[in-house]
Amino acid sequence: MNAPAPGFTLGPNSYGKSGIRLVHVDRASARHAIRDLTVHTALAGDLDATHYSGDNTGVLPTDTQKNTVYAFARDGVGAIEAFAERLARHFVETVPAVAHARVRIEEHPWTRIGDHSFARGEGGELRTAEVRFDGAASVTAGVRDLLLLNTTDSEFSGFLVDGYTTLPETDDRILATAVTAAWDYAAAPADPDEAFRAARAALLDAFAGTYSLSLQQTLYAVGERILKTVPEAREVRLSLPNRHHYLLDLGPLGRDNPGVVFQAGDLPYGLIEGTVRREAP
Amino acid sequence: MNAPAPGFTLGPNSYGKSGIRLVHVDRASARHAIRDLTVHTALAGDLDATHYSGDNTGVLPTDTQKNTVYAFARDGVGAIEAFAERLARHFVETVPAVAHARVRIEEHPWTRIGDHSFARGEGGELRTAEVRFDGAASVTAGVRDLLLLNTTDSEFSGFLVDGYTTLPETDDRILATAVTAAWDYAAAPADPDEAFRAARAALLDAFAGTYSLSLQQTLYAVGERILKTVPEAREVRLSLPNRHHYLLDLGPLGRDNPGVVFQAGDLPYGLIEGTVRREAP
Amino acid sequence: MNAPAPGFTLGPNSYGKSGIRLVHVDRASARHAIRDLTVHTALAGDLDATHYSGDNTGVLPTDTQKNTVYAFARDGVGAIEAFAERLARHFVETVPAVAHARVRIEEHPWTRIGDHSFARGEGGELRTAEVRFDGAASVTAGVRDLLLLNTTDSEFSGFLVDGYTTLPETDDRILATAVTAAWDYAAAPADPDEAFRAARAALLDAFAGTYSLSLQQTLYAVGERILKTVPEAREVRLSLPNRHHYLLDLGPLGRDNPGVVFQAGDLPYGLIEGTVRREAP
Amino acid sequence: MNAPAPGFTLGPNSYGKSGIRLVHVDRASARHAIRDLTVHTALAGDLDATHYSGDNTGVLPTDTQKNTVYAFARDGVGAIEAFAERLARHFVETVPAVAHARVRIEEHPWTRIGDHSFARGEGGELRTAEVRFDGAASVTAGVRDLLLLNTTDSEFSGFLVDGYTTLPETDDRILATAVTAAWDYAAAPADPDEAFRAARAALLDAFAGTYSLSLQQTLYAVGERILKTVPEAREVRLSLPNRHHYLLDLGPLGRDNPGVVFQAGDLPYGLIEGTVRREAP
Repeated sequence: MNAPAPGFTLGPNSYGKSGIRLVHVDRASARHAIRDLTVHTALAGDLDATHYSGDNTGVLPTDTQKNTVYAFARDGVGAIEAFAERLARHFVETVPAVAHARVRIEEHPWTRIGDHSFARGEGGELRTAEVRFDGAASVTAGVRDLLLLNTTDSEFSGFLVDGYTTLPETDDRILATAVTAAWDYAAAPADPDEAFRAARAALLDAFAGTYSLSLQQTLYAVGERILKTVPEAREVRLSLPNRHHYLLDLGPLGRDNPGVVFQAGDLPYGLIEGTVRREAP
Repeated sequence: MNAPAPGFTLGPNSYGKSGIRLVHVDRASARHAIRDLTVHTALAGDLDATHYSGDNTGVLPTDTQKNTVYAFARDGVGAIEAFAERLARHFVETVPAVAHARVRIEEHPWTRIGDHSFARGEGGELRTAEVRFDGAASVTAGVRDLLLLNTTDSEFSGFLVDGYTTLPETDDRILATAVTAAWDYAAAPADPDEAFRAARAALLDAFAGTYSLSLQQTLYAVGERILKTVPEAREVRLSLPNRHHYLLDLGPLGRDNPGVVFQAGDLPYGLIEGTVRREAP
Repeated sequence: MNAPAPGFTLGPNSYGKSGIRLVHVDRASARHAIRDLTVHTALAGDLDATHYSGDNTGVLPTDTQKNTVYAFARDGVGAIEAFAERLARHFVETVPAVAHARVRIEEHPWTRIGDHSFARGEGGELRTAEVRFDGAASVTAGVRDLLLLNTTDSEFSGFLVDGYTTLPETDDRILATAVTAAWDYAAAPADPDEAFRAARAALLDAFAGTYSLSLQQTLYAVGERILKTVPEAREVRLSLPNRHHYLLDLGPLGRDNPGVVFQAGDLPYGLIEGTVRREAP
Repeated sequence: MNAPAPGFTLGPNSYGKSGIRLVHVDRASARHAIRDLTVHTALAGDLDATHYSGDNTGVLPTDTQKNTVYAFARDGVGAIEAFAERLARHFVETVPAVAHARVRIEEHPWTRIGDHSFARGEGGELRTAEVRFDGAASVTAGVRDLLLLNTTDSEFSGFLVDGYTTLPETDDRILATAVTAAWDYAAAPADPDEAFRAARAALLDAFAGTYSLSLQQTLYAVGERILKTVPEAREVRLSLPNRHHYLLDLGPLGRDNPGVVFQAGDLPYGLIEGTVRREAP
C-alpha cells in the first residue's frame, strides 16, 4: 500500500449509495399495500488503503449496497426505522472492514383511492428515519417538508432594537413554516409506525394550539409536546424556516388591508433551529 | 418612433408578471379560510413602439399588473377561474393598448387542522386555471402534479417490433404517472369549485378503474370520463409522463420477485400526451 | 377495435421518451471530445386504436425510441441539429404508423481542463435544438438559461399610469435576465455548430451594447442582431424573464445607496416574450 | 419568564436569516465590477426566555440581521471570507445576548462580456465561505456544484465480493462527480481571493491528473493537493457524488460500444465523503 505524502493524513470518511428509489408492493390480499422509499447508505471502517493507493480490498461497492437494499426489501419492509436497522446491522455484522453503517430512509406517503390504486402530490411531506449502527443501533425518526400555517394567534414584539432595525412590532401575523423534525429514540417503540403517527399528531396539535410570541416559542412547544406524547423519544431537533407572509400596504391602491391579503415571501427566510430534551432524572 | 431595420419586423409578443405569490385570509368567522395562489399575467396589444424605440406610452408595467392582482384580491378571491377572469377582463377593458390578456393561476391546496390552522406537503398537487380575454373570455381549468399509481391491472404488449426493440412484453406492471390535465369550458359552470371537484374525482375514478393495455388507453378513458362528468367541459388535454417502475431481477441475489420490489425510475420517462373532445352535435 | 363512447373523440396526441441522458466520447485522438445531451422524442400518427382499445399494433414503444437514440449515437453525434434530424427522419421513414416526429435536444457544454478531462457548473446554460419531421424537416436552434446582466445603461419611464401604479420611474437600473432564445432555420446552415456560436455571440453583443429603455427594446435588438448575423435564420423567439434587482433604501440605516447595493429579487418576475422576423422580400 | 415543563429542557439552538440575495456593484471606474452573493446568518446565545415564554428581549430579529448584511455591503464587500468575518464579528461584539455567530456565503461567479455587462449559466458552480465567531474567528473556504469528468484513466476492481455483488470489474470507465469541497484556514491567507483561485486550480489539476483506481483515491489526491498548494489550509473536507455513466450494451442493436456511448445515470448515485488533514508537526 502506498503511503500518503509526509505531513498529510486521512481524516473521517464514508462511502455509500444515495437516492436508491424503491417501491414495495404487498400483494397478500387483493387490497394491495405499498411503501415508497428513498434509501441512502453510508459505510465507514478502515479505508486507508483505497484512499492512499486505490487498494479496494476492503470496499463494498456502492452498487452492492444498492443490491442489498433491494434484496432485503424482497424479504419485507415494514416500518422504515426497522428496515433501516436491519440493513445497517447487516453491513456491520457481515461485511469485513465495515465498522459503522448509517442508513437513512425517506418515505413518500400515498393515499389510497382503490384496492390497488394510490394518489399523492408531487414532492410533498416525507417521513424520515436514520439508523446508525456500530454494534449498537441509534434510531432517529422524523418528518420533513411538512408545511404548517396559522392565520392568527401569532405576535412578534419586544425584540432587541439596534441601528439596523427597521422591522415594526406586530400583534397579529401569519405564522408559516416547513417543518423538519427528528427525534431520537432512547428505546425502540413497540410500534414505530404508531409512534410516528402519534408524534406527527402531537406536532400538529402543538403548532395549531400554541399562541405564539415567537417562532422559537412555537418550536419549544412542539418539541416538548412530541416528547410528552412519545415516551421513547429523548430528544427532538427542529428546523423551522419562517416563511414570511408580508401584509401588503394597499393604501396607495385605495384599499385597507386588515389582515386579508398577504404576499407569500420566498427569499430570504428566517431560520429557527433548536433542540428540546428530556432531562436526565 | 424609430423603425426597425429594413427587412425585419416584430412578431407575436406579450409581457406580464409571473410568480405573484398571494395568500388571502377570509376572517368572516372565527373559522378562517385561506386561498394560496400563484398568479401569472400576460398582456398583448400594439407594442411596436416599445420594441422598436423604447417608447413605453402603451406599457402597463408588470409591477402595476402585480399591484392589480393584490388589490383585486382585497375585494375577494373566490374560485380561481372567476378571479382570473375578473383580472383579465379588467386589463383589456380599462387599459388602453391592451387588446388581449391571459391570466394563469395555480392554487396550492391546504388541509384544515384547526380553526385558523392548515397543513400541506411541500410542493404537492396544484389546481390550475387559465383565462384568455380579448372581449370574450375563454376559460380553462385543470390540475397539475397529481401523482397516481396502480399496482396492477396494467399490461403492455402487441406493440411494434423493429431492429431497435429490446423491451419484453408484460401482462402485469405498475402504472404510475404525474397528471397534468386541463379542460376548456364551453360554458361557465355554475360553481367552478364544484366542477373542479367533480372533474378531479372523475379523473381518479377513471384512472383507478381502467384495466390498462396502454397508457394511451388510460389517457383516453380519463379524458372521456371528465367530459361525461362535467357537461360544461368541451375538451380535455392530458399530459401523462410514464413514471417507469422497473421490476428488479433478484435472481442473482437468490430471490424471486413476483411483482414485489420495483426500482422507481427517474430519467428517462415516457411521455404520453393527448386530447379528448366532445364531438360537435 | 373498440370505438369511443358516442359523442366523444380523440384529438391531437403524441408519445415519446423524455430525458434520455447521453454522453458520447470521441476517442479518435488522445485528446478526447465529448457531447453531453438530453434527448426528448415525440411521435404522432394514427393512434386511435391504442387510445380507444389498447391495440398497440401501431405503437413504437418509448423504450425502443430510447434504444434508437443510443444506437444512432454510436454511429456518431455531430451537431445536435443534425443528430435530431437523423432521428426524426428515421422514425417517420422507417416506422409504419409514424407520420410526424419531433426530436428535442439539450446540450450541456463542458470546458476542457485536460486531454480527457472536462469541467462545468451544475445546471448552467444549455444549447438547444428541435427538429420536426413529417416528410420535410423544420429545424430550430437555440439557447436556454443564459443569464445576462447589465449594471447600467437601462432606464424605465414614460409608461402608462393608472390607479394601480406605484412604480417610480428610473433612469438607471440593473437589467438582468435569463435568456431563452430559439431561431428557426429557413435553410440549413453549412455548419450548425458555427452558426450557433455566431448567434450566441450576436446575442451577447446586442445585450451588452444596447442602451435599454425597456426590456422589450433589448429583446427586439437581440432578435434582430441574431437574424442579421445568421442569414439562414428566419425568425427568433425570445423569452426574457426580468430578474428584478431592487435598489435598497439604506437611508434608515444611515447610508446612501447610489446604485451600489441591490436585492436580487426572486418572485415575482416580469416576463417579456416576443418574436422577431425577417420580412418576406 | 415561564419555565419549561418539569423534566424537559432546551438544547442547542440558533436563529438567523437564510437566502439573503445581494448584488454589489463597484462603480469606481467605467469598468464596473460585481459580486453576487447569497448570505445566511445564524446567531446563538442565551435564548431560553424566548423559547420558554416568548420573551424576545435578547432576540435580534432576522430582519435586522438582513438589514445589517445590506448595510455592511454598502461599506464594501471584498473577499467573501472577509465579508463574512466582519458580519459575524459585528453580531457578537455589538449585540448583547449574541455569543456565537455563523455567517455562510455563496458567491455566484459572473463572466465579463463588456464594461458593465456580465454572463453566466443558470445554477452553476458556487464559491463558498463560512465564518464562525465567538470571540475568535474560524474561517472555511470552498466550492460547490463544480462538475468534473474524466473520460478515461479510471478503473474499479479488486473490491469486496459478497452474495449481493453483481457489479463487474472494469479497467476503463468514465469518472464524473459534482465537487463540494471546504477547507479550513489555520491562518488567514494574505489574499483570500488568490488563495481560492489557487485551491480551485489545484483541485482541477489533481482531478485531471490522477489515474484513479477508486473515487476515494481521487478524493485523497485532490485534498492533499489543495493542502500542498495553500499553506494556510489545514484540513479539506470533500463530498464527491459518483455520477455514474453506464456503458450501454448495444449488442442487441447490432453495434459494439468500445467506450463511446454512455447513459448518464441520475439516481441512485454513489457518495464518497472524506477528510484530508495536515498532520501536526
